[in-house]
Amino acid sequence: MSLFADLLSTIFDRRAGAAPRLRRDPRALPELVTELLEARSETVAATLARHVLQRYDGMSGEEKLAAFHGLAALNVDAEAVRGALAAYEVEPSGRSYRAFMAAAEPPRAELLRRLNMVPGATERLVRMRADLLRQGRGEPELEALDEDFRHLFKSWFNRGFLVLRPISWESPAHVLEKIIAYEAVHAIQSWDDLRRRLAPPDRRCFAFFHPAMPDEPLIFVEVALTRGVPGSIQALLEEERVPLEERSADTAVFYSISNCQPGLAGISFGNSLIKQVASDLASTLPGLKTFVTLSPIPGLVGWLEEQGVSYDPADGKRMTQLAAHYLLTAKRGDGRPRDPVARFHLGNGALVHAVHAGAIPRRTACGSRAGRWSTTSTIWRRWSNITTALPRAAR
Amino acid sequence: MSLFADLLSTIFDRRAGAAPRLRRDPRALPELVTELLEARSETVAATLARHVLQRYDGMSGEEKLAAFHGLAALNVDAEAVRGALAAYEVEPSGRSYRAFMAAAEPPRAELLRRLNMVPGATERLVRMRADLLRQGRGEPELEALDEDFRHLFKSWFNRGFLVLRPISWESPAHVLEKIIAYEAVHAIQSWDDLRRRLAPPDRRCFAFFHPAMPDEPLIFVEVALTRGVPGSIQALLEEERVPLEERSADTAVFYSISNCQPGLAGISFGNSLIKQVASDLASTLPGLKTFVTLSPIPGLVGWLEEQGVSYDPADGKRMTQLAAHYLLTAKRGDGRPRDPVARFHLGNGALVHAVHAGAIPRRTACGSRAGRWSTTSTIWRRWSNITTALPRAAR
Amino acid sequence: MSLFADLLSTIFDRRAGAAPRLRRDPRALPELVTELLEARSETVAATLARHVLQRYDGMSGEEKLAAFHGLAALNVDAEAVRGALAAYEVEPSGRSYRAFMAAAEPPRAELLRRLNMVPGATERLVRMRADLLRQGRGEPELEALDEDFRHLFKSWFNRGFLVLRPISWESPAHVLEKIIAYEAVHAIQSWDDLRRRLAPPDRRCFAFFHPAMPDEPLIFVEVALTRGVPGSIQALLEEERVPLEERSADTAVFYSISNCQPGLAGISFGNSLIKQVASDLASTLPGLKTFVTLSPIPGLVGWLEEQGVSYDPADGKRMTQLAAHYLLTAKRGDGRPRDPVARFHLGNGALVHAVHAGAIPRRTACGSRAGRWSTTSTIWRRWSNITTALPRAAR
Amino acid sequence: MSLFADLLSTIFDRRAGAAPRLRRDPRALPELVTELLEARSETVAATLARHVLQRYDGMSGEEKLAAFHGLAALNVDAEAVRGALAAYEVEPSGRSYRAFMAAAEPPRAELLRRLNMVPGATERLVRMRADLLRQGRGEPELEALDEDFRHLFKSWFNRGFLVLRPISWESPAHVLEKIIAYEAVHAIQSWDDLRRRLAPPDRRCFAFFHPAMPDEPLIFVEVALTRGVPGSIQALLEEERVPLEERSADTAVFYSISNCQPGLAGISFGNSLIKQVASDLASTLPGLKTFVTLSPIPGLVGWLEEQGVSYDPADGKRMTQLAAHYLLTAKRGDGRPRDPVARFHLGNGALVHAVHAGAIPRRTACGSRAGRWSTTSTIWRRWSNITTALPRAAR
Repeated sequence: MSLFADLLSTIFDRRAGAAPRLRRDPRALPELVTELLEARSETVAATLARHVLQRYDGMSGEEKLAAFHGLAALNVDAEAVRGALAAYEVEPSGRSYRAFMAAAEPPRAELLRRLNMVPGATERLVRMRADLLRQGRGEPELEALDEDFRHLFKSWFNRGFLVLRPISWESPAHVLEKIIAYEAVHAIQSWDDLRRRLAPPDRRCFAFFHPAMPDEPLIFVEVALTRGVPGSIQALLEEERVPLEERSADTAVFYSISNCQPGLAGISFGNSLIKQVASDLASTLPGLKTFVTLSPIPGLVGWLEEQGVSYDPADGKRMTQLAAHYLLTAKRGDGRPRDPVARFHLGNGALVHAVHAGAIPRRTACGSRAGRWSTTSTIWRRWSNITTALPRAAR
Repeated sequence: MSLFADLLSTIFDRRAGAAPRLRRDPRALPELVTELLEARSETVAATLARHVLQRYDGMSGEEKLAAFHGLAALNVDAEAVRGALAAYEVEPSGRSYRAFMAAAEPPRAELLRRLNMVPGATERLVRMRADLLRQGRGEPELEALDEDFRHLFKSWFNRGFLVLRPISWESPAHVLEKIIAYEAVHAIQSWDDLRRRLAPPDRRCFAFFHPAMPDEPLIFVEVALTRGVPGSIQALLEEERVPLEERSADTAVFYSISNCQPGLAGISFGNSLIKQVASDLASTLPGLKTFVTLSPIPGLVGWLEEQGVSYDPADGKRMTQLAAHYLLTAKRGDGRPRDPVARFHLGNGALVHAVHAGAIPRRTACGSRAGRWSTTSTIWRRWSNITTALPRAAR
Repeated sequence: MSLFADLLSTIFDRRAGAAPRLRRDPRALPELVTELLEARSETVAATLARHVLQRYDGMSGEEKLAAFHGLAALNVDAEAVRGALAAYEVEPSGRSYRAFMAAAEPPRAELLRRLNMVPGATERLVRMRADLLRQGRGEPELEALDEDFRHLFKSWFNRGFLVLRPISWESPAHVLEKIIAYEAVHAIQSWDDLRRRLAPPDRRCFAFFHPAMPDEPLIFVEVALTRGVPGSIQALLEEERVPLEERSADTAVFYSISNCQPGLAGISFGNSLIKQVASDLASTLPGLKTFVTLSPIPGLVGWLEEQGVSYDPADGKRMTQLAAHYLLTAKRGDGRPRDPVARFHLGNGALVHAVHAGAIPRRTACGSRAGRWSTTSTIWRRWSNITTALPRAAR
Repeated sequence: MSLFADLLSTIFDRRAGAAPRLRRDPRALPELVTELLEARSETVAATLARHVLQRYDGMSGEEKLAAFHGLAALNVDAEAVRGALAAYEVEPSGRSYRAFMAAAEPPRAELLRRLNMVPGATERLVRMRADLLRQGRGEPELEALDEDFRHLFKSWFNRGFLVLRPISWESPAHVLEKIIAYEAVHAIQSWDDLRRRLAPPDRRCFAFFHPAMPDEPLIFVEVALTRGVPGSIQALLEEERVPLEERSADTAVFYSISNCQPGLAGISFGNSLIKQVASDLASTLPGLKTFVTLSPIPGLVGWLEEQGVSYDPADGKRMTQLAAHYLLTAKRGDGRPRDPVARFHLGNGALVHAVHAGAIPRRTACGSRAGRWSTTSTIWRRWSNITTALPRAAR
């Protein structure tokens, strides 16, 4: 009954005003995992889950990799799936269906759900997947494990569970420092720079949070309220500018959107965030008539090369025409736009409004962040912008 | 683009200070469902989900039953499962595994997740399952659908996402009136009765909530702080009693625990709730040395009959001995206690402390609730109590 | 240094999770009061203040009366005032002015401020004045003491410190039960009656709170949203009525306003409350065009008697005409309306809109509350209503 | 009725989602002030108060000075005081006492209370007094006005109305930037410096707030949790240090306390703050046994000079002895310690624990702040420290 004793010791510890500590369980990790998967009492399971997570946190990168391979081995049993499926076909019932479901889901999926019983575990599991993506890159045997993470997180981080919160100069500093760290598009240089993006009456920022990770933004978008659609990002971020009174604004520019959690890669929040922010802004500030994004065109240079055209920043006019052509006509095999940013916005009901040459500065500022996520680092090699408009007239 | 227009109209409506309304979409429900399952844009999907939920809410009981049969038909395709499984076996990869997972999960499961994109949908889906359990009782074709609900809710209502909140006389009235309505063990007769259970310094109540349903308790437990273990529930609920000063208490009696959501049947919260409440109380009131429950013994009468003994309330002493014998020795095939309440508490580390004859009054007060959930209605046919103790000494 | 020890013992007690207790100080109350008035250390003063308040709370009505006379004796010293005033006239400076101020304020005023150092003291001082008003009625020597209370409370409960909060069915039960208890105009019969006034979409309630007494409403107003100006209060309070959708309302009827704190008699909150509620409602529900009160006419019957007219409820038409005449033409010596309710509303910019015979039911329901405050009990002897309108057109 | 129209226009403005604006009232300020003092309707008074405050905010320094002289002229009328006092002596009653109180208080005091009816006015009035202290320095005619401000603020900022809040790295950035700005003892160099003082587990910070100025700390104290009493402030503020686990600490060092509001000069919060923080820490962390301050000895150098001793930083030992002698034996005329810091701490029950030579660094860091308040700028010319201990054993 040592686990029960452990559990109760946490009660004692917490009374002393501190986070509970666990005495190290002498058993090996696989043994703990097996016991956790078999535990019928929630209380016992919760204590085992704490042990497993604590063990994981103390591991080196290599040990984690080994643990991931151990997890990957808790795979579906194909024979069992076939058997349960056949039984369900012969006699479909709740019971036979449940048996099939149990067989079709690998034990590691149930394990992840059980680990989440521990307070604060959701954030730790998201970091665990970030470890997996980093440590396990290029190891095909770990891909299925990652799929289980992704599938679980897609369910847990369902839109219905996300909470939209404004981020302002009145937000807690420990959240704001994460905004500084996570801004992936136009790096925030300092707390003064941050204040310039949050405090003026013509600036807004919103983030999605999950209630189980209240200190960790999942994604955030920065918005500038303007009169008319601006031609470049530089004007928006200038240090010495006179802020607009919010009631005079007719346009909301979504000039930067950043994912914060590498461990949530592949789970898309951007569309929902833009939609809800646009909706909230429109209801608070009825003077807003136009909602635009200022976005890079990441696929342009590659496409130009394929066309045998070399990119010439000096020839802004021709580049702009080519960019417009590319955006509107270049398609993937499935008929959707070839450019990923165009796909995101146009697939969501937006229209191409204008193409600006040189509207996003060279990548200097963001150098330090480059390569953090391979999927976004390419964005910074581009030279021009798409302005996608959600014109109110069309509604 | 009518859905997009719909979406934007909601923005407009909300500005007018009201809940958004949807114009009725002329298409039939199955068509909407199909489109929702195929929608690639989150924005479009969210609007379709609102239509589907609104359509459902307007249905009669019969129409709902028909809709459930429609949902049930969105079943797994056994051939596809076998094919995807074989492909994964031949060439295991993230892609082939994902294809297998997609095949092994029926489309209705994904549908439920997509419906949850709508604000407030979680609560509506929980009610939908309550409808299913009521309307669909005895229809075996609907059992698998219910399994999908249960599996999804088990993931969504994972312990890690639940929030413990004290319920007190300072809690919002709209939550308190649900406590009155949901109390399943010792009915609360009036607001005055409720105040007697919440306001005195020697009374506590705690509930689990889910952040997406902040107005709906999932389960709650009522606790009395006492000196010594009380012999009956009546003494605890007396109208005219002098409350104990909380610092004088040495015992916490968990005298009632009630599930609130029929739609969450089969998802167990009780163990976690008792564990965390005991832990919190111990840390706040170090004088508490004993944690007990006062619970009925639902399986006793049936077991007595099997033994050829007829239940005789007049012979308290013998009944008590038989009850103790039953609790400690009668086992199921799997070696665990036969009595469900004993199974719950003893499996969780508790010890039998005492058996009291007549400690829970006859079922009169609870008559109106009888039959609400078949699983608990039997509890009220019993006559005596088990006191299970979580003795601190054992820690 | 026993007071210091006391102080530190409170630290110890609080750690034990309980409200701090004071060991009884053996000195007599006047001695404690004197020491409190002379204490230079805030820490010492705070502990003395706790002793004084605790001593007061344990007193019988007679002892309290004696204590009030003791307080009253801490009066201004006329000679000292004259001396300090003369000194200030001779040599006006900050120092001489401060000396004058100190002389012109009786020590009991400073005492009340020092008592307020104790957490929760504000509410206790308000109750102390309620005791004074009740126990000290008819004792002229206590009137000056009451003036000091009133002057202090006028400063402390300044409009700038009050917080407007909506009261709804989601408000804490311990606040709602005070709403039930304090409703002085149209008694609330039960929690169901309360729910009918708070929960429907066409009902609102707002109260002023002071941050130092967050559980105690100071005054609250009940509002019905209607189409058109209603003719009687009965229609508003009917049990079986179909609520209006809030967006359809064009009129806000302030049908009841109640002061909650007898200890704050003479400090007027009603005007500010109505003004701010009207302002908030107008901004949330732009469809509201008319703001009216349904008020009794307390002075009518007395005035009729003076005119030699006896009140005849059967002759509604004539009574209505006379009431209108009375409201618009009967003045006090200072030229303001003779009727107190008319004075309140008309002085605040309202117009008489209509006079309804029999719009407020006989006093039966409120009988139990009658006489709680002599100033309002007379209201209930009247038979008809004034509807005062704040027409938007006039703005 | 233009004021009433103004009032209602604010309703309209607020609906547009913006702070209300006032059309400029054409009357001169004195006329507005007179009308405000005479207004019988709260609604009218509130609008006039907004006009007066808005007018003030737009003034230059010189105009403000003139306005202060105007305010100062709203003085007590000595003849009226004498008359009312005599009347009260002849026939003491509530009415005659109220008349005396009204006469003894200058109209400007009532004016300040009426200005506070405007939302957010408290903070503006505190700034107004800060203006008065700065602009009016050396003008004796303004001293009495300042006394009225002080007297009013002493009542409004009574201990019973203050709220203690922890300041942490999770506090809102707009409050934290004020902590950076207001730190008067050991300047905070940057946000990183601030994080070092707030985020580690062995650091604490607490501030008093007033509910009517929730964004403005009034005073704050910084605390370090240590093992044993540290010998110097430098060790506490080192950049590269390993934080102590909070449960290992046995000592709480109050190493810096800063007043934030120049407009609240002369209203003392420090004692109450230290007392309550010590109390809260002791109850949260029972391991804490010693509570000390590290304070400068501002009066030492002056006293040495009077003794004919010149201060010699090289001779630490002798300076320390002299300092101890000075602290314990040098008294003012009233028998209390001559050193102001010693007076503060010893008067509050503390004991001198040790004298450290060179424990507070030279004033370089704080240079930029020097002279902000003349009362504290001298602190920085001193060289050594007093450690005052509140030993738990003595309780």
